[in-house]
Amino acid sequence: MRTVTLSPSIHFTPQSQTNNFPRKQSPSGINLHPKPNLLQCNPITAQNIAPPTSFALNSLKTQNFNSTNPPLVVVGSANADIYVEIDRLPKEGETISAKTGQTLAGGKGANQSVCGSKLAYPTYFVGQVGKDAHGKLISEALEKSGVNLDHLNTVASVPTGHAVVMLQPDGQNSIIIVGGANVSCWPETLSDQDLEVVRNAGIVLLQREIPDSVNIQVAKDVVVQAARNAGVPVILDAGGMDTPLPRELLSYVDILSPNETELGRLTGMPTNTFEQINQAVVKCQKMGVKQVLVKLGGQGSALFIEGQEPMRQPIVSAPKVIDTTGAGDTFTAAFAVALVEGKSTKECLIFAAAAASLCVQVKGAIPSMPDRKSVLDLVHSVQ
Amino acid sequence: MRTVTLSPSIHFTPQSQTNNFPRKQSPSGINLHPKPNLLQCNPITAQNIAPPTSFALNSLKTQNFNSTNPPLVVVGSANADIYVEIDRLPKEGETISAKTGQTLAGGKGANQSVCGSKLAYPTYFVGQVGKDAHGKLISEALEKSGVNLDHLNTVASVPTGHAVVMLQPDGQNSIIIVGGANVSCWPETLSDQDLEVVRNAGIVLLQREIPDSVNIQVAKDVVVQAARNAGVPVILDAGGMDTPLPRELLSYVDILSPNETELGRLTGMPTNTFEQINQAVVKCQKMGVKQVLVKLGGQGSALFIEGQEPMRQPIVSAPKVIDTTGAGDTFTAAFAVALVEGKSTKECLIFAAAAASLCVQVKGAIPSMPDRKSVLDLVHSVQ
Repeated sequence: MRTVTLSPSIHFTPQSQTNNFPRKQSPSGINLHPKPNLLQCNPITAQNIAPPTSFALNSLKTQNFNSTNPPLVVVGSANADIYVEIDRLPKEGETISAKTGQTLAGGKGANQSVCGSKLAYPTYFVGQVGKDAHGKLISEALEKSGVNLDHLNTVASVPTGHAVVMLQPDGQNSIIIVGGANVSCWPETLSDQDLEVVRNAGIVLLQREIPDSVNIQVAKDVVVQAARNAGVPVILDAGGMDTPLPRELLSYVDILSPNETELGRLTGMPTNTFEQINQAVVKCQKMGVKQVLVKLGGQGSALFIEGQEPMRQPIVSAPKVIDTTGAGDTFTAAFAVALVEGKSTKECLIFAAAAASLCVQVKGAIPSMPDRKSVLDLVHSVQ
Repeated sequence: MRTVTLSPSIHFTPQSQTNNFPRKQSPSGINLHPKPNLLQCNPITAQNIAPPTSFALNSLKTQNFNSTNPPLVVVGSANADIYVEIDRLPKEGETISAKTGQTLAGGKGANQSVCGSKLAYPTYFVGQVGKDAHGKLISEALEKSGVNLDHLNTVASVPTGHAVVMLQPDGQNSIIIVGGANVSCWPETLSDQDLEVVRNAGIVLLQREIPDSVNIQVAKDVVVQAARNAGVPVILDAGGMDTPLPRELLSYVDILSPNETELGRLTGMPTNTFEQINQAVVKCQKMGVKQVLVKLGGQGSALFIEGQEPMRQPIVSAPKVIDTTGAGDTFTAAFAVALVEGKSTKECLIFAAAAASLCVQVKGAIPSMPDRKSVLDLVHSVQ
C-alpha cells in the first residue's frame, strides 16, 4: 500500500465548490445524458466521491485502496517502448549497430494509470497484454507504481503491444508500432468484472490506442449506469489513432483532451493560433462533446466549456526541459485526479500543469511521472 | 532433467576411432599447443570424455547432467530478437504500423547452447544479460531447453543485447543491433567459477558476438589447462562481428567455422567457387588455425584439415525450406555435440547436416532446433 508523507507546511486549499451532475438514461440507452449548467471553474466533478477535500495534509492520508474514494479507472493501452539510438536509419537489407538501447513500459493507458497512482490516488488499469516478456515488463512497472492490476488481462495469441522508437541525432524519431494485444483479441463484450470496476469508478480515463469499440462500450456503460449510479466523468485523451472520432464515442464523453495537433486532425481545421484553436473546439462541441481540454505544449493549456469563455492555464515553468515524453499523459491524468478529488477547474489546471512541469525534467515517460508531494510542493511554490 | 527416449530401431554406430590430442603449455602460456598428426575422418575429439559411444539407444541414456560426460560449454551472446513485419522502412520522423511483431530469444551463443541441450548433451551457457525483461525472456527460453544457466551472469547497468529485425516483403531485412550486455561490462578477468566450468568442459564453443578479449581469455585458458588436463577442442563460429580476427584468438582455436561470406570477409578473398574457398581456407590456416569447417548453405559443408584433402558433406535435403534462421548455429552446435561424443569427422558432418536440415523446416531459431531423436531418425534414413 502506498503512503504519502507530506510536510505539514503544504496546503493547497480549493477555493470553489463541487458541482455534481446526474445523468439520465435515454430509452435507447445512448447519447442522452443531459449535463447541468456548468459553473465556471468547477464544471465537472464526480458525485459519488467523498466530500470535497483539499490538497492539504489530512486529505492525502486517505489516498489509497483502503480509502472509500471511488477510484480512477484507466481503460487503455499498455506498450513496451523499445528505444534504439542510431546515427541514421538502416537501408534495405542493411545491419547497423545502435549506440544504445532501452526498453521501457509505456502506452498511453499504462502511463496515465501510473501517473494516477503516483499522485496517490487509487487507480485501476483495464487493458490487455500478451503472454510474453514485454507483458511482464509492463505488469511489473505498473505494480511497482501501485496500480491495481486486477483487470489487466493476458491474451495468449498475440504479442504485447510494442513500439520500436528509432532515435536519431537530429531529433527526427521514426517509430514502428506493433498493436498486438492493444488492438486485437478484445472480447466483443467486456466481462462483467471489467465493467464492474468501470461502474464503480470515480472517474474514467480513455485514450485512442485501443479499438474505438471498446472505448464506446466503456463510456456508454458509464452513461447507462449513471441512471442509477452517480454521474462519473469520462475523459477521452485524443492521443493515439488518427482515424476520425466516432460520434457515438464523443456523445458519451464529458471532456475531450487533444493537443493542438490532434485537435487539428480531428476537425480538419488549422490550429496555429488561439483563435483557430477556439474555432476547432467549437466544431468538436458541435460534434457532441461540451468540454475540450486542449494541451498547448509550451503555451500551457486551455479548457473550453461550451457557452463560456475559455480558461487558459500557462505552463509551470521548468528550470530545464530534458524530455517531454509522457508530459501529455501526465497532464491529462493529473487533471483527472484533481477533478475526481473535487477540485475546482482552476485547481485542476494548475495541478496538471505542475505535474507536467515536473515530468519534462526527467527522461522517459513512466520514470518521469511525479509523486503527489512534489506536485503539491510546486503548486504551493507558484501560488 | 531431460530424458530422451529412442526407438530401439535407431542405430547410428561410429565407424572410426577417436583421436585424442594432448596440448602443452608454452613458457609464455600462449600459442604453443602442438596438435597431433590427425587421422582423416576423426581429427579432433576430446580426450577427457567417456569412451567412444555410438548414437544408438544405450549411449543416449546418459545424455544429461547426471552423466559423467564433460559438458559442451558455450561462451557467447544472448539476444532478444525483436521481429517486426513492415511494408516498408519508415522515413525520418515517420510513425508506421507493423503488420505483426514477435520477440524471441536468440543470439548465437544462446542458440548454440539450446541446440546442444536439445540434442540431449549436457550443455552450459556462459554469458551476460541485463537486469530486464529481455534477460528474463532469454533465461526462461534457455532453462526450458535444459541449458545449465549457473554461469549466465546478470549485469545491472546495461540492457540485455537485442536486435530489431525489420522484415520487409521483398525479403530484404534491415537490422539494428544493440550490443548491450553482450559487448559491455564483461569483467577484465572472468571469474574463477566461470573459468572452472570452461576447464571442465568436454568441448568449448565460441562465436563473435562478444568481445574478442573474452573469447581469447576462454580459449587461452583451455589451452593452458591442457597442460595438466586433457586437450579440449575449441570451436570458433566466425559469425558475429566482422572486424579482423585477432591472431591470438585464432592461435588458441582448433576449428574455425565460418560460412562462405564470413570466410571471404576474414580473408579478403573471393569465395564464389570451391577452389576460391579452398584458397581462402589456406590463408586461414596460415593465420594459425589448422582446421576450417565451412558452411556452404545449400551446397552443404566442407571440413578442411591442413595437409589433407577437404572433406565435403552435401546437405540432407529438406522437403520444404521454411526459414533458414539459426541453421548455421544448429550445424555448428550439432557438429560439436557429435565431436565431443567421440564420433568420426564423417559422422559429425552428417549429424550436423541432418540437424540443420530439420532446423530449416521450422520458423524461428530456437523453436526450430531439433531434438536428438529427430536428428538420429533422419541420419538413419539417409544412410
